Amino acid sequence: MEYVRDPLEIEKKSFEIIEGHVDRGKFDEKEWAIVRRVIHSVADFEYAGIMDFSEEAVEAGLAAMRRGCRIVTDTRMVEAGINRKALEAAGCVVKCYVDYPDVAAKSRELSITRAMASIMAAAQDGGGGIFAIGNAPTALFKLLELAEEGRIKPDLVIGVPVGFVGAAESKEALVASGIPYIVAWGRRGGSTMAVAIVNALLYMLKDENGKICRKG
Amino acid sequence: MEYVRDPLEIEKKSFEIIEGHVDRGKFDEKEWAIVRRVIHSVADFEYAGIMDFSEEAVEAGLAAMRRGCRIVTDTRMVEAGINRKALEAAGCVVKCYVDYPDVAAKSRELSITRAMASIMAAAQDGGGGIFAIGNAPTALFKLLELAEEGRIKPDLVIGVPVGFVGAAESKEALVASGIPYIVAWGRRGGSTMAVAIVNALLYMLKDENGKICRKG
Repeated sequence: MEYVRDPLEIEKKSFEIIEGHVDRGKFDEKEWAIVRRVIHSVADFEYAGIMDFSEEAVEAGLAAMRRGCRIVTDTRMVEAGINRKALEAAGCVVKCYVDYPDVAAKSRELSITRAMASIMAAAQDGGGGIFAIGNAPTALFKLLELAEEGRIKPDLVIGVPVGFVGAAESKEALVASGIPYIVAWGRRGGSTMAVAIVNALLYMLKDENGKICRKG
Repeated sequence: MEYVRDPLEIEKKSFEIIEGHVDRGKFDEKEWAIVRRVIHSVADFEYAGIMDFSEEAVEAGLAAMRRGCRIVTDTRMVEAGINRKALEAAGCVVKCYVDYPDVAAKSRELSITRAMASIMAAAQDGGGGIFAIGNAPTALFKLLELAEEGRIKPDLVIGVPVGFVGAAESKEALVASGIPYIVAWGRRGGSTMAVAIVNALLYMLKDENGKICRKG
């Protein structure tokens, strides 16, 4: 069968298609590198229209990564998708608390989602870091509650939970919170999108350091 | 903040919203259970219009699962998203070969994607099973080549790779192959979708067995 087999060629061709179809618009160069990787990951040009960044959000994320921050995810899918080599090169770690033994017990006890209980565990385990919420609106709501109470201090929140119940509202609450954010407005989002955003930030850091690393 | 915290209530509400917006249309009851879970996962009604099933695809998948088949995925994200409890209850296993030591070496040697090399490893490791391709069109192309050569005999292919380069074409090739399939036409798809389809099948099996298991 005839098809492109070289991973770098596939990515290059994909980025050319995106650049040919979508205008960079309001995004600066670094924001656009993130938006472009999201579009590449979901194969949907419309995502350019729903993405938004707080001022200096990208810089806040990069600064945290330069300090070797933790990246907290709400699902194991997001954890699994983050490029390990780029992560290690940055000296960062991914933490996903949903499978911690206490978390399931806590969620049953309180009749809350495991995602919420996992963010409570993240707060107990330290205050800062980048939070990549790609699945559960409840995780984002809980994060904002804990931040309001001063029990958690995110450097950046990647707020792209998905769903018909609460997703849009959770992002509006994030944008109103004053915490640096990258969001996708409305009900769309997802693990793939969260991963694309984290990896785009990690790749920027690699490029800064003059190394090249791409996921095959 | 005011939001729904109970995971079962969230899923119930979400399914009600979907049933209120999308007509079951051409899908039978089991196909619809799958389509509905996909829409729930991506929060996009349009996916009802791009999903397609070969005749008896669902039964082929369930029959393989009843035999405790392997479920081969093209990415660790899909592997991570599959419900472990439902998987274990079915006696099935998930196999993702992309991180196997030989796979990276083979992909570099041949200038092919790691996803392609992972499917070659899957062929060496046995012939059958359910293949859930949620990311790389090249993995689906390679799978079809190996099937044509008789080196792999999938019970069901969940063909939902995503992307601008080859995704649509790879699905057309799958549908023409005669292998039982579940696809999303065009360039859309993704890990989340592959996971939703596999989990929907596993939940059907659990319901058959009179047990209840849902991911929190």
